[in-house]
Amino acid sequence: MPHTEQIWRNVDAVRREAPLVHSITNFVVMNVTANALLAAGASPIMAHAREEMAELINIVSALVLNIGTLSAPWIDSMFLAGAAARERGLPVVLDPVGAGASTLRTTTAAQLMERVRPAIVRGNGSEIMALAGAAGATRGVDSTRDAHAAADSARALSLRHRCVTVVSGPVDLITDGDEVVLVTGGHALMPRVTGMGCTSTVLVAAHAAVAASPLEGAVSGMAAMSAAGSMAAERAAGPGSFAMHFIDALYALSEADIRARVRVGRP
Amino acid sequence: MPHTEQIWRNVDAVRREAPLVHSITNFVVMNVTANALLAAGASPIMAHAREEMAELINIVSALVLNIGTLSAPWIDSMFLAGAAARERGLPVVLDPVGAGASTLRTTTAAQLMERVRPAIVRGNGSEIMALAGAAGATRGVDSTRDAHAAADSARALSLRHRCVTVVSGPVDLITDGDEVVLVTGGHALMPRVTGMGCTSTVLVAAHAAVAASPLEGAVSGMAAMSAAGSMAAERAAGPGSFAMHFIDALYALSEADIRARVRVGRP
Amino acid sequence: MPHTEQIWRNVDAVRREAPLVHSITNFVVMNVTANALLAAGASPIMAHAREEMAELINIVSALVLNIGTLSAPWIDSMFLAGAAARERGLPVVLDPVGAGASTLRTTTAAQLMERVRPAIVRGNGSEIMALAGAAGATRGVDSTRDAHAAADSARALSLRHRCVTVVSGPVDLITDGDEVVLVTGGHALMPRVTGMGCTSTVLVAAHAAVAASPLEGAVSGMAAMSAAGSMAAERAAGPGSFAMHFIDALYALSEADIRARVRVGRP
Repeated sequence: MPHTEQIWRNVDAVRREAPLVHSITNFVVMNVTANALLAAGASPIMAHAREEMAELINIVSALVLNIGTLSAPWIDSMFLAGAAARERGLPVVLDPVGAGASTLRTTTAAQLMERVRPAIVRGNGSEIMALAGAAGATRGVDSTRDAHAAADSARALSLRHRCVTVVSGPVDLITDGDEVVLVTGGHALMPRVTGMGCTSTVLVAAHAAVAASPLEGAVSGMAAMSAAGSMAAERAAGPGSFAMHFIDALYALSEADIRARVRVGRP
Repeated sequence: MPHTEQIWRNVDAVRREAPLVHSITNFVVMNVTANALLAAGASPIMAHAREEMAELINIVSALVLNIGTLSAPWIDSMFLAGAAARERGLPVVLDPVGAGASTLRTTTAAQLMERVRPAIVRGNGSEIMALAGAAGATRGVDSTRDAHAAADSARALSLRHRCVTVVSGPVDLITDGDEVVLVTGGHALMPRVTGMGCTSTVLVAAHAAVAASPLEGAVSGMAAMSAAGSMAAERAAGPGSFAMHFIDALYALSEADIRARVRVGRP
Repeated sequence: MPHTEQIWRNVDAVRREAPLVHSITNFVVMNVTANALLAAGASPIMAHAREEMAELINIVSALVLNIGTLSAPWIDSMFLAGAAARERGLPVVLDPVGAGASTLRTTTAAQLMERVRPAIVRGNGSEIMALAGAAGATRGVDSTRDAHAAADSARALSLRHRCVTVVSGPVDLITDGDEVVLVTGGHALMPRVTGMGCTSTVLVAAHAAVAASPLEGAVSGMAAMSAAGSMAAERAAGPGSFAMHFIDALYALSEADIRARVRVGRP
């Protein structure tokens, strides 16, 4: 189970190695996730044209597939990029935004799990339960389940697809189907800022690009997110200033901040 | 005519009921309008794929159609979502961004008025005049007319389409064709921040989802916008910090703020 | 060679004339570049539908073509808008985001140079070298070359296409193939904020709309960018607050700020 030293090693490695992270993602969060990657020391690229997928996958270190504003041509590119990334052995991270809210989202996410086989999937409780086929309604793109209630679904999903599953919430749960890790930190303002979940997904991808294993990358990415969230909340007067301070905190994040603000443990 | 108590009741109801607002909107404002909805206590969803329109309309409480970056497939989805929302009796709010600047925009907005019959349309003076068929040029997406000059167009549009029309400007004018309400507040920095008009549209939609009538929802949404704008301006050093403080202000908005900062009256 | 007085004259002219700048640009930077234009006193419009290109070009003062998130229909609209702008004699500014990273980007940028003949092209060192056909790899969308290393490519590109070439970096290089101007200013945080390069492109377009020549507009646009960047850095605690202060600085920029913070000179 990763400890502060390992989390810090990955935060530092992202800054030193500046992994190029390719996102095929939703329109709402493109700007904020690109800024989060840059603040963390990584380098973002976003593209969705079929014609350039193979070439771009050749130069990147991780791939994010985010289904928040799907349409047919973007789905095609996700499968194309996913296949190319898998062939190259790159970590692929799936963000199943709104899975459970529509057949298109649930089906696309399930097919990406089957055919792309992402190393990591990160969603809220409702999304992970929808993806695992559990009963439970997704209410739009915000979760109606807390992370603990989705623990069984997460383990089942990880075992079925041999992937790491991250259920984010007040306490984040990360599992490879066997080991279960809880990350505690962050702040209640985070769900009041759009794209915070999607931001944790891109941070997990950047960490996975430098980490020893997908599990370690998922844990350290979520821990960095939680530490920066906790730092930002201290200076914020509301969700607007929180969003700004969060980016500054990601940029400034030190080993001491991680030690002071995040707890990583077992259930 | 709504008074402070009614405005506050709607602000509070949005926070308690957290209406899910579906936007088919332009790329420029997706992030900022999602953040405004979250700060106000509502919940945003954005999607444009035909395949998921009907299902999503089934779980939302209001629909925003914003024509700021149109293309053929998005127009199709607007009509599809609009028809489904109308069938369910949901409030639909149209934002005719740039109507008058191109035939595509003017025609699409006019057809949405005819076929979707939105409960509320919110634009600047030029856009409302273009939609009403009045003479007057739209200059890009920013208004060249003030709210008062467009009052006749607004009343005509409301009578013709049995909708509430909002003309935003230094003084906002809201009419159902019969009653006319003026909302005074806000700040001169607001037109220097992109998407402030589109933000007022989504706030009006969130308020319409909880209000007793479209007129009341339009007035209270615009009043909340004006109060938050006035609060933000006091702390802002320019349009960048204004945008941040505006989101914080929406989040913190109290009944006393509304009372102190907004005047609602008749012409 | 433009001096402080000329730079200031253009900053002031943008505020007085409020040129309408049409961008066909990438999804990531739409919001931030629209806000930069508004803060500088210009007026943004963004649209990509073929159907409205000709009409919109008729009402704008400059056109930006940015290839950051290309797809086939957007490429069509870029050629359509570019041809219409050229016919009207409007300044067209090309931002070849990621040229060199994929064949689609390099080829599209090269064809836009050939067929649209932009007045100005603005990129980082890697992008300009890729466009000039020089050896050197683009690493995603961030530059791996500094401005000086790309000077030869910039001159060659300008001579071949009779355009002004801007290579942005710690020191910006601007050339029409004959004269070479260097702009020094800005801050090391700028590459840690997404869309800062794209922002300089839209500022150059706004300046080109009011300047005596494309060279003068390119220099004064880059100088305004550098001055605002230097001002923002003094107040910023990281890239999040930098982005906010940058917009405020663009809005507040005075002749004294330009004089104190930017050096314009020859190599």
